[in-house]
Amino acid sequence: MSKGIISKDEDYSQWFNDLVIKADLAEYAPVRGCMIIKPYGYSIWEKMQAALDKMFKDTGHSNAYFPLFIPKSFFSKEASHVDGFAKECAVVTHYRLKNDGEGNIIVDEDAKLEEELIVRPTSETIIWHTYKGWIQSYRDLPILVNQWANVVRWEMRTRLFLRTTEFLWQEGHTAHATAEEAIAETEQMLDVYADFVENWMGVPVVKGRKTANERFAGALDTYCIEALMQDGKALQAGTSHFLGQNFAKAFDVKFSNKEGKLEHVWATSWGVSTRLMGALIMTHSDDAGLVLPPKLAPIQVVAVPIYKHDEELENIRTYIKGLSAELRAKGISIKFDDRDTQRPGFKFAEYELKGVPLRIAIGSRDMQNGTVELARRDTRTKETVIQEGLAAHIEQLLEEIQTNIYQKALNFRAENTVEVDTYDEFKRLLDEKPGFLSAHWDGTPETEQRIKDETKATIRCIPLNNKQEEGKCILTGKPSTQRVLFARAY
Amino acid sequence: MSKGIISKDEDYSQWFNDLVIKADLAEYAPVRGCMIIKPYGYSIWEKMQAALDKMFKDTGHSNAYFPLFIPKSFFSKEASHVDGFAKECAVVTHYRLKNDGEGNIIVDEDAKLEEELIVRPTSETIIWHTYKGWIQSYRDLPILVNQWANVVRWEMRTRLFLRTTEFLWQEGHTAHATAEEAIAETEQMLDVYADFVENWMGVPVVKGRKTANERFAGALDTYCIEALMQDGKALQAGTSHFLGQNFAKAFDVKFSNKEGKLEHVWATSWGVSTRLMGALIMTHSDDAGLVLPPKLAPIQVVAVPIYKHDEELENIRTYIKGLSAELRAKGISIKFDDRDTQRPGFKFAEYELKGVPLRIAIGSRDMQNGTVELARRDTRTKETVIQEGLAAHIEQLLEEIQTNIYQKALNFRAENTVEVDTYDEFKRLLDEKPGFLSAHWDGTPETEQRIKDETKATIRCIPLNNKQEEGKCILTGKPSTQRVLFARAY
Repeated sequence: MSKGIISKDEDYSQWFNDLVIKADLAEYAPVRGCMIIKPYGYSIWEKMQAALDKMFKDTGHSNAYFPLFIPKSFFSKEASHVDGFAKECAVVTHYRLKNDGEGNIIVDEDAKLEEELIVRPTSETIIWHTYKGWIQSYRDLPILVNQWANVVRWEMRTRLFLRTTEFLWQEGHTAHATAEEAIAETEQMLDVYADFVENWMGVPVVKGRKTANERFAGALDTYCIEALMQDGKALQAGTSHFLGQNFAKAFDVKFSNKEGKLEHVWATSWGVSTRLMGALIMTHSDDAGLVLPPKLAPIQVVAVPIYKHDEELENIRTYIKGLSAELRAKGISIKFDDRDTQRPGFKFAEYELKGVPLRIAIGSRDMQNGTVELARRDTRTKETVIQEGLAAHIEQLLEEIQTNIYQKALNFRAENTVEVDTYDEFKRLLDEKPGFLSAHWDGTPETEQRIKDETKATIRCIPLNNKQEEGKCILTGKPSTQRVLFARAY
Repeated sequence: MSKGIISKDEDYSQWFNDLVIKADLAEYAPVRGCMIIKPYGYSIWEKMQAALDKMFKDTGHSNAYFPLFIPKSFFSKEASHVDGFAKECAVVTHYRLKNDGEGNIIVDEDAKLEEELIVRPTSETIIWHTYKGWIQSYRDLPILVNQWANVVRWEMRTRLFLRTTEFLWQEGHTAHATAEEAIAETEQMLDVYADFVENWMGVPVVKGRKTANERFAGALDTYCIEALMQDGKALQAGTSHFLGQNFAKAFDVKFSNKEGKLEHVWATSWGVSTRLMGALIMTHSDDAGLVLPPKLAPIQVVAVPIYKHDEELENIRTYIKGLSAELRAKGISIKFDDRDTQRPGFKFAEYELKGVPLRIAIGSRDMQNGTVELARRDTRTKETVIQEGLAAHIEQLLEEIQTNIYQKALNFRAENTVEVDTYDEFKRLLDEKPGFLSAHWDGTPETEQRIKDETKATIRCIPLNNKQEEGKCILTGKPSTQRVLFARAY
């Protein structure tokens, strides 16, 4: 329990919290369930945003911005949507404070809104209200828009990054002339998410569809990517919804097709959020702190000089300067930590905590020998390597680390994904060796709900391209044609 | 009045609104005073964000994120701050809606917050509450943090981009060990803003200080950059505040200095917002539409093919493909508009409206002659140029346009900045030839207020490095040592 972080094995949940705080990622705000994303945490989020934003643009999307506030009446327009979101939202009722004459600041009752405003929990309603003005003809379609924004859902139990009252996200909202095109968009964005989460974050995911119970409120079909955390709990890392014509009907959005006939528009929406930070942490990190994939690390390499005399430091500095230029030319970021207020050992621990993928330690003997000591954060191994060709070696090592942490997570998931055929075995594993449990289910919402009530496990998804096989539901014994993926989840 | 835009001379205010709507920059939302920033408008804002963000990082700042909601009590802690911001804010009082049983969605009175939350109008209070936990010693200073966020101020009269209930902005919040350092930061960020607004937006600004009346609520000193719009009204384009120890005292933020003594921390804050979009539009645009500076134009060059037969189009396409590669290598964006649903004349008008700096028209005769027609948006001039070396010519032209629109705006400002020595002349000019009026003022808030009440002109700023000269206040005739800059303002 050095660094003020409890061991994962002792208390995983506490370990996560400790790590988020100690690695300067985030902290709780004085407002219930809200968080402050600290500069170091935010710099990781910025890298995630930049990569995703480029992927969205490469697939033809543009960003736009819609209002924070949504008139209350908008929520009633799509029946299932209101049930899903009205329960947990922040309501603005007044627009002024005043001094009560005794020095207290109070709400001014003369400034009560005629219609209350809801702080957006998601923006389908206000966006489809807007699209009505943008869409007349098939020539106006498709609309491929994304928004980076904050949203608010009044959660009762909150955890940093995983479930906060306010969180940051992106929400894509597209409009199409046909169901086929909308479904293709839904699937394309699921692929974009899977690509990002696997190849940038190094987090393997299962692509699948949600059951009716777990669908987004207002969607005909919800696609998702599901990841497995180190404690065997699943985490939904992103969702992409085929909304059919539900919102177009609710907001009366029609277009005239090529034959001049009026039709309702087809819709999708898709989003990922700061929750991904939680997935990142709980996939790779260890008791020594964060482990970051090189592609998302704000600092990819740190160089720590080991010296007694200033002239030694100056020699090292000159060398690192040259190396830095070489690395930067390769697009690799390096920090030279020459603070004289901290000892090398302290710095080593700090950069381990912060998840810096590669650490260079370099002293006078190294300078004489033409070597440096390289330490990998992922494997916690060290090697002494020659300075010649170091930049190229580092470039290759960073790629290796990116691959290695993904592979490690993939192995973990393979070890913790088990086919289960009886309900007893199912319950036993959930307690003794939690992970993805692949099991037969009779396809009814009732059975799904009973399993959830009895075990806290939910159907995470019906994997895409699922193998079809005969079987019996683990709970009811009724016939089933495919296995689905169960787990307890964040 | 083609394109549905009224002439500037006829009605400047209506022209601005028409242009914002017709050029697809923004529109009003169904929520009072809120706006929807459309994809084209947002893509300009994104370019502004990217340039500013780089400047902030180059001066050592990091981004972070603080909560949208601020407990009501926080506002009472800094006395002048509450007066400035409590009057016009959105208040969250409840956290749940419910169905009243008759199909209506109503606010659930059982879900009333104990303490109301304010949607941030600015974040000094919540950030200084947070800094208390971050700062113990001089070693923790300076803190150089910026936030990109949405804020809400309940404005009674709103205009797209210029004054909206919700707007997007960045707010820098820094903490320092000494007053000198904080003042240096305040001044540095003013310089960063001036650099950005002049060299990226092409909008000349006057750097100055606000009078006590116009200061930010809670600041000891407010620095600003003021621009002059085409209708002779001023627009405050950015502010940088020296907050002294006001917020540190209000939130009890102390640090132990090198001698181990506890002192209150010194603060600055600084911000620019989507209001800059208004300044951009009202500095350069004309009756034909937007005029964008090349550095911020989402599309810098558009190529429109003029052809009758498909094979002609294919020849042109091949040529433009090669040109595009050359331009992209220079970091210049080009769009090839080969839509066959619109005629060239329609496209020309559309790209004029959207402010694309350079337009290439190219037909079969051009292909035979090895030429293209180049049209500049800023001067609305055309020239026929040879294809050889075109990429380099375009690069140079874009730089010329960037310089030219700035110079034009600078000339306009020079023509509309007048030294005035009598109150009659002052009032006459405000009505007949509005602009910056440089006049003597006796230095009292009362005189400033009376001038404002009688003429609607305010003191925009006391220019930095102002010339000291003897004079008499235009209103009271009392002695004055320097002229200040008056104008009616947005």
